[in-house]
Amino acid sequence: MLLVMDAAHTQKQLDAVVKRIGELGYKAHVIPGASSIAVGITGNAGPLDPSLFEVLPGVKQAIPVSKPYKLAGRDFKRGDSVVRLQNGLAIGTDALVVIAGPCAIESEAQALRIARLVKKAGAHIFRGGAFKPRASPYAFQGLGAPALDILAAVREETGLPIVTEALDQESLEAVDRCADIIQIGARNMQNYALLREAGKLAKPVLLKWGLSATVDEWLMSAEHIMAEGNRQVILCERGIRTFADHTRNTLDLNVVPVIRKLSHLPILVDPSHGTGLRDKVAPLARAAAAVGAHGLRIEVHDRPDEALCDGPQSLLPGQLEELMAQLRAMGKALGFKL
Amino acid sequence: MLLVMDAAHTQKQLDAVVKRIGELGYKAHVIPGASSIAVGITGNAGPLDPSLFEVLPGVKQAIPVSKPYKLAGRDFKRGDSVVRLQNGLAIGTDALVVIAGPCAIESEAQALRIARLVKKAGAHIFRGGAFKPRASPYAFQGLGAPALDILAAVREETGLPIVTEALDQESLEAVDRCADIIQIGARNMQNYALLREAGKLAKPVLLKWGLSATVDEWLMSAEHIMAEGNRQVILCERGIRTFADHTRNTLDLNVVPVIRKLSHLPILVDPSHGTGLRDKVAPLARAAAAVGAHGLRIEVHDRPDEALCDGPQSLLPGQLEELMAQLRAMGKALGFKL
Amino acid sequence: MLLVMDAAHTQKQLDAVVKRIGELGYKAHVIPGASSIAVGITGNAGPLDPSLFEVLPGVKQAIPVSKPYKLAGRDFKRGDSVVRLQNGLAIGTDALVVIAGPCAIESEAQALRIARLVKKAGAHIFRGGAFKPRASPYAFQGLGAPALDILAAVREETGLPIVTEALDQESLEAVDRCADIIQIGARNMQNYALLREAGKLAKPVLLKWGLSATVDEWLMSAEHIMAEGNRQVILCERGIRTFADHTRNTLDLNVVPVIRKLSHLPILVDPSHGTGLRDKVAPLARAAAAVGAHGLRIEVHDRPDEALCDGPQSLLPGQLEELMAQLRAMGKALGFKL
Amino acid sequence: MLLVMDAAHTQKQLDAVVKRIGELGYKAHVIPGASSIAVGITGNAGPLDPSLFEVLPGVKQAIPVSKPYKLAGRDFKRGDSVVRLQNGLAIGTDALVVIAGPCAIESEAQALRIARLVKKAGAHIFRGGAFKPRASPYAFQGLGAPALDILAAVREETGLPIVTEALDQESLEAVDRCADIIQIGARNMQNYALLREAGKLAKPVLLKWGLSATVDEWLMSAEHIMAEGNRQVILCERGIRTFADHTRNTLDLNVVPVIRKLSHLPILVDPSHGTGLRDKVAPLARAAAAVGAHGLRIEVHDRPDEALCDGPQSLLPGQLEELMAQLRAMGKALGFKL
Repeated sequence: MLLVMDAAHTQKQLDAVVKRIGELGYKAHVIPGASSIAVGITGNAGPLDPSLFEVLPGVKQAIPVSKPYKLAGRDFKRGDSVVRLQNGLAIGTDALVVIAGPCAIESEAQALRIARLVKKAGAHIFRGGAFKPRASPYAFQGLGAPALDILAAVREETGLPIVTEALDQESLEAVDRCADIIQIGARNMQNYALLREAGKLAKPVLLKWGLSATVDEWLMSAEHIMAEGNRQVILCERGIRTFADHTRNTLDLNVVPVIRKLSHLPILVDPSHGTGLRDKVAPLARAAAAVGAHGLRIEVHDRPDEALCDGPQSLLPGQLEELMAQLRAMGKALGFKL
Repeated sequence: MLLVMDAAHTQKQLDAVVKRIGELGYKAHVIPGASSIAVGITGNAGPLDPSLFEVLPGVKQAIPVSKPYKLAGRDFKRGDSVVRLQNGLAIGTDALVVIAGPCAIESEAQALRIARLVKKAGAHIFRGGAFKPRASPYAFQGLGAPALDILAAVREETGLPIVTEALDQESLEAVDRCADIIQIGARNMQNYALLREAGKLAKPVLLKWGLSATVDEWLMSAEHIMAEGNRQVILCERGIRTFADHTRNTLDLNVVPVIRKLSHLPILVDPSHGTGLRDKVAPLARAAAAVGAHGLRIEVHDRPDEALCDGPQSLLPGQLEELMAQLRAMGKALGFKL
Repeated sequence: MLLVMDAAHTQKQLDAVVKRIGELGYKAHVIPGASSIAVGITGNAGPLDPSLFEVLPGVKQAIPVSKPYKLAGRDFKRGDSVVRLQNGLAIGTDALVVIAGPCAIESEAQALRIARLVKKAGAHIFRGGAFKPRASPYAFQGLGAPALDILAAVREETGLPIVTEALDQESLEAVDRCADIIQIGARNMQNYALLREAGKLAKPVLLKWGLSATVDEWLMSAEHIMAEGNRQVILCERGIRTFADHTRNTLDLNVVPVIRKLSHLPILVDPSHGTGLRDKVAPLARAAAAVGAHGLRIEVHDRPDEALCDGPQSLLPGQLEELMAQLRAMGKALGFKL
Repeated sequence: MLLVMDAAHTQKQLDAVVKRIGELGYKAHVIPGASSIAVGITGNAGPLDPSLFEVLPGVKQAIPVSKPYKLAGRDFKRGDSVVRLQNGLAIGTDALVVIAGPCAIESEAQALRIARLVKKAGAHIFRGGAFKPRASPYAFQGLGAPALDILAAVREETGLPIVTEALDQESLEAVDRCADIIQIGARNMQNYALLREAGKLAKPVLLKWGLSATVDEWLMSAEHIMAEGNRQVILCERGIRTFADHTRNTLDLNVVPVIRKLSHLPILVDPSHGTGLRDKVAPLARAAAAVGAHGLRIEVHDRPDEALCDGPQSLLPGQLEELMAQLRAMGKALGFKL
């Protein structure tokens, strides 16, 4: 249920509405909008009776919401959500945001070297894994906490905001102290304990799409974060698992306009994981920009043959520069900035 | 096995090579190239010994081909294949080709009305179903042969070449007499009897990707056509079947660069069937152009609510005009013509 | 729409009902049942008004049918359909039917040798491909028409009924002259032209499930056959295509109770194609019997290493004997005969 | 790499082998077997040279292991692993183990009532969710810790061992204190942090198959647990996600013989989640027993319409009794006990 307040409502009326919702055993979410204020009600098992709320002073209308997600849906918030980072960068506008960097932080030298190259190419945010979820317990699991210090040094030198993945409560706290955006990976998309903890933080969360999750399940995972209070969620498509084995995963670009219709949250596309093949990354990155993504997440390595993880899908810095030039030209044609 | 002939070989030497291949029980395919002539050998169950052929006068080199498809692969033909229609239109170049029209021909009035509109919008080829493969035996199966006369009238008036689907031997013959391109649909991608008959014709064949076929299976189906002598095959992606139900099918744009690497055949994308939703067609059409497709196949209807089939996924003529303008602007940025 | 006739209706009333349906532009299907006669109406685009028919003398009730298939569904026919072969063998009862034989007929000696072995093991029907749909145009395509003579000789000697695949109009006619059951393969499940032709014959048709077809699409393909008049359709599950690559296909046994609830048609399971691995065939055959299949379709070869097709998934004759003994023991426990 | 020790090796030789492996920077896993002792080596990035180890006194043979998993594979352990619970119950033998109970613990009265019924029907282990991973943050999340006390009371009264799910570090510790088996659900199959924590405990872990994980990924997740020292892993198939929507998930029974060939770990099947439909549970349970599963996991509720979760897929107690009788009869035919 979504309550839309009268334009002329008073703060006292709003407080009384919130209180009444609590008395009924539900949870109120005050949602400020450009022209009006709304109050979302969650926690109800079945449908609610609108008349319960429309009689309250200051309430203009009570709108039942049919989708299982509420805070993540367009019913709750018409306009696009924009996530703003500390350096002022906005995600979710008509300015395409490019996140670039290596799969894993391997050393300070490697990180700084690549960070300078992606900055020079025009990328806006630096990515690099400190804690890596690996299928094998015997594979390189990332440098861990020391990599966070390296990421901090990268930001210090280049000014690029940082995004890196958290895997559990401990790494979440560490990443929150260091990064500008906390990434939750595809394998943890339904790790609800982790989602809830991330929802208690005041830091943007980049939530990747699980390999075989439905769109409803994905938005419900965003809802787990948002229901705890953190509304700064950025979605990221990175390929789904299908019968098709000509690419590592099947990058599903259909989902971009689908999400943009259903949800107000920004959506990025990761063609590196989506295809798993270096020579497919640039074509799919162009396609992602053309289909309406708010940004791209691209793996870049200057020495991919030496990379400790995902070398074969990493662009070379020169390839990133070329891609950025193409995206800039496309933006002029299609009306997005870069 | 692929034999590359000496630049200085004689016709007599070439004839002797072809004869020798026949004597060994295999089939020879002479493949003229820009700078040299090659001879493909098919019909062998296992690998062949290159030395059997390298001793023949005029043969420069014998190259084993590892892929199951031969005529459809880049090993056989390095450069892109270009399919040229009677009116001079070329498919497979850097000029993006747009095929547009209704799902089914419903009447001469409907066909002419829509054909004029798509021509005005800048489309290059008119599509319209005469014989419709329908899941239900009780649904509208297309007007059949009379629709072919309507299509001929459309070409007569508008000058637009025609593509329409054949379902069996009988409709194949009829379509061959009328159309500029014969379409073989996704459900018949592995109807080898039909593929072989199409391979005996001298008309371009548009072969759609089966809903759950691998890339190898798709190219092998092209091979069935090509092995009969018809090299004018155009591939068309129209969505695959996956768990994802947020669109009617999952349009897989990854396959475009994959096909372009493996095969010399032109590849089109059909975002209408690929998504099944009108408001997703234009974004995915832009993405298909950005990813490197040679053309698009788009359903258009001026009265979609009255359409006898696939109304909900048909663009309105005005939407097609808008899309064409976007594609033209994109082409300038990315180096394709329209 | 399904009309249930009064128990006391007259033939004249029935004729009048059929005539009235025709006048309205629909098609009538008289369906004799154990205790009453029903008349199915097909050919309507949208829902029909029951009162149109309930006023006709002799009509007891008009029941709207919501599923897209009608003749294939339980609404039309409550009891299980039983397909009876010329030698009296019944498919669709509580007697489990086992079809066994090689993938392809390679020679009369091979066919007779294997037929004797599968008969000895207790199989009821002999299978062997004459016309093989192969992904490669260069692979062995079956012996063709001569194999049909071999199959006739096998039946002559062993008394086993014969099932073999038809690929197109020509092979359909040839197979109809020779076989006891006509098989339509998974790749042709939506080759509606072929289905309609098979529907005009008076011979049982074994219709395999397409690799990515929905249950509705499968039953609609059965409906294409049945709407032409041939009600003797046998369904056969042979694996679907999924992301899972640990078996050649994913044999989906869930579909057996699903089909048995929705349809009255017999359903068989083919664990040979379903798994593609010899050592998985017997466990999955047992599982298919336990889940309620009416029969099994199993590839058997006594010299699998020499087989021209599908050797690695063929049981050895001794393995078939062992499996038959297990199935017999299971039948006593679960109430089916063998 | 797997080192097989001489039958006549001394403890001192074994200690020296373990020490040498550590010196080389790898990890040694001593694996006692019925007739010989083996030492597994993990932690190597690439292949190891067998001669490095075959020169060590007491080492009979060094066998390279090609699969990414080691401790979970048959190379490391030939015979089947048997997990024994405190009450003596063995999982992984020819005695089929049946786990039954409600999706969620709703109250002590509900739990005890159902536990008595499933015990009466012959089930061996009681299941019931205390911590429920739910797609919606607004849905019933389980009673939490109080449900663990209820489960303890159920075991106290009925003697049935208990299995229940853990979601994070906190619930893992609580479940470890109470349950006989710790369940890790499909959504957490690649929550490596949780797997590693479970690997440090001395309690059997039931690891469900992720909806779209490959067999290798599943066994690698078992490896994450085993590499920490906990070898008591039980696998459980509960359906995969495919295009097929006729059941809630696609229960893949092919995986049972595949796992039994690749791994020594016990494997169970959960037809309740696998199909999501009450009337499909018993047929698929019979099929799972026939295909060779070591046990079944079945949801049972005596008042499914009132169930707070998964009511529609729960068997009624009477249906469980009937199924157990069928399984007993099948066991006599197929050689398993119940």
